[in-house]
Amino acid sequence: MSFETKATIASFGGKLLKLTHPAKTTNCTMGLNLYLPPAATTGGKKVPVLFYLSGLTCTGDNCAEKGFFQHGASEKGIAVVYPDTSPRMSFTPVIRLAKHPHPSVFRGTVAERKNLSGLNIPGEDDSYDFGSAAGFYIDATQEPWTKGYNMYSYIKDELPQTLFSAFPDQLDGNRVSITGHSMGGHGALTLFLKNPGKYKSCSAFAPIANPSACPWGQKAFSGYFGADNKSKWAEHDATELLKSYKGPLELLIDVGTGDNFYKQGQLLPENFIQVAKEKGLDGGIKLRMQPDYDHSYYFMASFADEHVAWAAKALGA
Amino acid sequence: MSFETKATIASFGGKLLKLTHPAKTTNCTMGLNLYLPPAATTGGKKVPVLFYLSGLTCTGDNCAEKGFFQHGASEKGIAVVYPDTSPRMSFTPVIRLAKHPHPSVFRGTVAERKNLSGLNIPGEDDSYDFGSAAGFYIDATQEPWTKGYNMYSYIKDELPQTLFSAFPDQLDGNRVSITGHSMGGHGALTLFLKNPGKYKSCSAFAPIANPSACPWGQKAFSGYFGADNKSKWAEHDATELLKSYKGPLELLIDVGTGDNFYKQGQLLPENFIQVAKEKGLDGGIKLRMQPDYDHSYYFMASFADEHVAWAAKALGA
Repeated sequence: MSFETKATIASFGGKLLKLTHPAKTTNCTMGLNLYLPPAATTGGKKVPVLFYLSGLTCTGDNCAEKGFFQHGASEKGIAVVYPDTSPRMSFTPVIRLAKHPHPSVFRGTVAERKNLSGLNIPGEDDSYDFGSAAGFYIDATQEPWTKGYNMYSYIKDELPQTLFSAFPDQLDGNRVSITGHSMGGHGALTLFLKNPGKYKSCSAFAPIANPSACPWGQKAFSGYFGADNKSKWAEHDATELLKSYKGPLELLIDVGTGDNFYKQGQLLPENFIQVAKEKGLDGGIKLRMQPDYDHSYYFMASFADEHVAWAAKALGA
Repeated sequence: MSFETKATIASFGGKLLKLTHPAKTTNCTMGLNLYLPPAATTGGKKVPVLFYLSGLTCTGDNCAEKGFFQHGASEKGIAVVYPDTSPRMSFTPVIRLAKHPHPSVFRGTVAERKNLSGLNIPGEDDSYDFGSAAGFYIDATQEPWTKGYNMYSYIKDELPQTLFSAFPDQLDGNRVSITGHSMGGHGALTLFLKNPGKYKSCSAFAPIANPSACPWGQKAFSGYFGADNKSKWAEHDATELLKSYKGPLELLIDVGTGDNFYKQGQLLPENFIQVAKEKGLDGGIKLRMQPDYDHSYYFMASFADEHVAWAAKALGA
């Protein structure tokens, strides 16, 4: 089955589509945003596609509203896909539904929230860093998360296949890049490293670069894979994957020096770079420590143009 | 008294300051955002200032996060002030405080929300288009709103005076422009027309251009001024003010053709243009009907660069 278009919003000369679709891999209806640049909407051209993976607590809405990717994507003629971060119907808090005066922005209704709230796994909404909005782009092996916490397969296969068959005249399925923020940066790096050649380029903002070695990753992997299943952990850890990666490797990674999560050791880009150095792959990695920048969308908005340009170069856009 | 800095956030090479200060005109602590471009933060230059007035339901946070004025302001070397929309301490919903993982973004605490929630006028939170977040940039003459609903005087006098004395080395109080969205577009137009020469330029996104003739304005003016006080209404109605305005007049106004509030007759830019034509002032008004754009921040983000450039030209930035 294909997409239901909940809203079509003009943005930087193109269209932002708020889409939902029933997904097999995640076993529930999923929400996402798809930005089609002017080249695809009025230009009638097939355009390359940049997948943007969001971080903890986010849906596909946050970056579409605050990340500023549409600015560069419009100019370069690139479509941007903003998926959700876990198996659930995408929603912003009910408190905003009542008063919000912009019906053109799809935020769902309380009824839809009740009826389509996803898998309804007990406890999945209890913490911001596990369960809802914390899918970590893995396929869970532990009950009850196997019920639909398969964001790895959803992002790698089902979502692109569904998109490319639904938008054959707008999206070029042979020219795809990936990027992401925090947990989504982890997702971008691991999907890129696990599937050589699938993505023309990869970049990341403040990625969780070594989840097996940080509190966020250890909590998530223990829950989704089991505390002792370290071989499975390694399959979804960018730093571990890099150890067996056959180059070449080109990456753009931005991390803010004022990022509290970097300071707390949740991101560990230094571990990733250390392995890259040992393998002689660090030459292709552009790690930029951005002075004073934090972990927020203000940080991403400030460098979104450069990450879109990074993808555009590899995508021939 | 001056400002308390709640957060300093790196954005587009400059700094976004989240400030609070006790305001006399509004009789409570007010929150606002101040964006200082690189020219002012590291360049050591006094920069001109663009006041951005927000619309219904918004605080100064929304546009700072989603409007992308910082992109152009950074490039042109202009500071942007994002005030709140009514007498209250600025907050995003408590529901977001609990889970939000970005401590660098000031959202207040539940305690602060309780202690500094503004005027605590009974019923002020009951509707999205009157009272809280709906100050309409007027000085109320009706009880109980006279208690502090004086956003006109706050924006015109107290806030700029406090800013220019607190940031004498960063802000150039002699080079000020104004813009705004919806209710804030009404605010920008009326402040500009009522104070010739005070602002070097004015622009607006989807302004409420003739509040006396639309449901939003009639509800607000009836409540703040009294239903029969039509002379007071006229003092804060851009279309009425234009009738006695002594030119010359240059304005940039963008309105989306897909804007539901435009379709519902809440904005009425045509009434404003009609009076401008009758007075031979329409030649200086650049009214752009933007195809398909709605009332949201996606609309503003798409044209923010052009509104900053409009101000920059007048400000010599």
